[in-house]
Amino acid sequence: MVPHLATALTGPINELEQRMLESMPAIERWFRLEWMEHTPPFYASVAVHNAGFKLTPVDTHLFPDGWNHLAPETQQLAVQAAMAAIEKICPEAKNLLLIPKNDTRDPAYQANLARLARIFNLAGLNVRLGSLSPEVNVPVGLALASGERLELEPLLRTPRRLGLKYFDPCTILLNTDLKQGIPGMLEDLSEQYLLPPLHAAWPTRRQHRHFEIYEEVAKRLAKLLGMDVWLIHPASAVCSAADLSAPEGIESLQTQVDAILTKTRRKYKEYGINEKPFAVIKSNQGPAQTDAWTVRDAKDIPVLMAQQSLPHPSDCLVQEGVLTQERIQEAIAEPQVYLMDRYVVGGYYRVHSTVNDQQQFVPLAFDQQAQLPQLGVQPGSSAPNRFYMYGVMARLAVLAASYELEATDPDAEIYD
Amino acid sequence: MVPHLATALTGPINELEQRMLESMPAIERWFRLEWMEHTPPFYASVAVHNAGFKLTPVDTHLFPDGWNHLAPETQQLAVQAAMAAIEKICPEAKNLLLIPKNDTRDPAYQANLARLARIFNLAGLNVRLGSLSPEVNVPVGLALASGERLELEPLLRTPRRLGLKYFDPCTILLNTDLKQGIPGMLEDLSEQYLLPPLHAAWPTRRQHRHFEIYEEVAKRLAKLLGMDVWLIHPASAVCSAADLSAPEGIESLQTQVDAILTKTRRKYKEYGINEKPFAVIKSNQGPAQTDAWTVRDAKDIPVLMAQQSLPHPSDCLVQEGVLTQERIQEAIAEPQVYLMDRYVVGGYYRVHSTVNDQQQFVPLAFDQQAQLPQLGVQPGSSAPNRFYMYGVMARLAVLAASYELEATDPDAEIYD
Repeated sequence: MVPHLATALTGPINELEQRMLESMPAIERWFRLEWMEHTPPFYASVAVHNAGFKLTPVDTHLFPDGWNHLAPETQQLAVQAAMAAIEKICPEAKNLLLIPKNDTRDPAYQANLARLARIFNLAGLNVRLGSLSPEVNVPVGLALASGERLELEPLLRTPRRLGLKYFDPCTILLNTDLKQGIPGMLEDLSEQYLLPPLHAAWPTRRQHRHFEIYEEVAKRLAKLLGMDVWLIHPASAVCSAADLSAPEGIESLQTQVDAILTKTRRKYKEYGINEKPFAVIKSNQGPAQTDAWTVRDAKDIPVLMAQQSLPHPSDCLVQEGVLTQERIQEAIAEPQVYLMDRYVVGGYYRVHSTVNDQQQFVPLAFDQQAQLPQLGVQPGSSAPNRFYMYGVMARLAVLAASYELEATDPDAEIYD
Repeated sequence: MVPHLATALTGPINELEQRMLESMPAIERWFRLEWMEHTPPFYASVAVHNAGFKLTPVDTHLFPDGWNHLAPETQQLAVQAAMAAIEKICPEAKNLLLIPKNDTRDPAYQANLARLARIFNLAGLNVRLGSLSPEVNVPVGLALASGERLELEPLLRTPRRLGLKYFDPCTILLNTDLKQGIPGMLEDLSEQYLLPPLHAAWPTRRQHRHFEIYEEVAKRLAKLLGMDVWLIHPASAVCSAADLSAPEGIESLQTQVDAILTKTRRKYKEYGINEKPFAVIKSNQGPAQTDAWTVRDAKDIPVLMAQQSLPHPSDCLVQEGVLTQERIQEAIAEPQVYLMDRYVVGGYYRVHSTVNDQQQFVPLAFDQQAQLPQLGVQPGSSAPNRFYMYGVMARLAVLAASYELEATDPDAEIYD
């Protein structure tokens, strides 16, 4: 089930989208069976690129911010899903400790925290915020632009538990991806539920592992739908040894890029796509959003290197670039899909304005048309949900993440 | 979690409501723990009476119709809950067979079927309708007032399965309470999931059993909240032997009514309530909505008998009457709360117009105010959800129903 949200898509439904819509009961059943065997990440956001002929997730966040950009009317979906998630993990929960990023000055991030606190409060929990920042020694009030107030409190660590003064949570929710490393304060908390687990953070995660597993699950879904997996998967290659300070490193990266571009060119020819392929080079050890390189020719790499540096030049992912065809007032609109547990609970477009190079966030509201009965049709069989395919892609990425977390779980039991 | 719907309540929040709002995390935790041990009915609707000083469920339907009266914007909550319910019961489900009442001529009931079909379709299932009516021998099209079309098909029974032509469902959803008895066609379907089970229908259910169990669970919730259980429970007594055709039967009924009225009078005095108590006599073997008697004095019973008959005069429930104080344009408005699995997914007011004695149904939409941030407060801690208490009452009734179904389950394993 994917909520019927109004997308910016207005053109005809192409073959790929049509196949997903037609196969809805089979797809839903497939996901249900997968979730019987695998535990979804607690929450996630997934950026999806829709090139029309091809549809893929490009980034899977397991510590998502941006909840404030979701349409207010969709909030109850998140609350209901949060209730289901809490019930499975910790039914006796009463108190939830929310740990934000250390830097909470950004008003948008503050609004995100307020929205998250509200969701879990409405799900029936006492929510308080504890800061990992060494600068927060006493409670600090944040006055939000909306008029709300948040209070950040210093964390209190005892040998076995983490909490606040007079607040002992059974569940701790991280809203920071701990890019800078795992603070000792979060380690060895075996009595409390730490969500998501520490191995979901970037010190452990690798983009290439995510996309390798994604390819496997995408192949199975493609088989179910009787279609080429390439239509829902971006060709990817890891380039771990490539230290870009050495000529051999650059050469090896160029070889990878060439291989991806050649593969893509062949596919474009096969499908009669009249576009110029491109590749994306991004850090293997962090979110893809920032600092990625776009390459149309492997020869351009030295030039790009001179202009911009990658955060982990010795560990990067080379990936087939997938355009996004959606536009809002001529600006590129990238769908962001939000999940709580296995449920798609909302989304928004991240819009890159071509005028001022700024980002805007356009919440996806319920499709009003979809709530009206359709003339002369069986109920539910009409008014195609054009957000559906984004929900499928996002869940496929999140399913890959669940396999990924199983593979990297340090506490996993090993069966021979 | 109870969705924040806009109620007709405008007055100040009284002590009872305030206590529920303040205890929300404790109440939610209590329900979560209960649902770990007990399986909620697949779906339900609960009528709640709110006298201001007192709040109780008065009727718990386990084969609810009226889904068409829910606000369209709340539909996704039902879809998400349906998905969660299906996932638990039958994750491999692809096809769902919906069995309506035999008489499908009422346009409102047709709209209810359309809404249910839509909900389960959006949850990812192929939905078709099969009729138990002997008159449906070939597919019959129903043209709905909305312009939608439904098709009713004749049921096909094989020795072990029930389905339609070219349609083999794994799950069968009953939307008829089988008041007239259990058709043989529905018996011994051990290979398929029949929801709700046959012992949830009126041939097995008894109102007094429901309210006896309700009293037990209400006592536990009242203890948690530190309050008198009477504030959330209507005093009830069964009068099974009273065959109203004999003078001893009438006397025995009068004694019961007197006892309930005396008990209520004492409580009214204790709480300083300046109202005249009344009792309700209703059939023990069917929904309470219809054919109930309202009695202010046990002496009036013979008069009432002369005017109106009870469907099961030898088996009735005598219950303390609880007024409902809510009004929409001066007409009495009775909240009806809808649940799918453990989730409150919407509601409406049943309004009894004093002008033309007709019923109207007013959908409860999301409270728009509740979606706005509140000035100067912690997120989620403000904008009281006045629908919350109805959600608590409805879930308490549904919890009682789950104990009730456990107690009457013919296939239950008995442990000594």
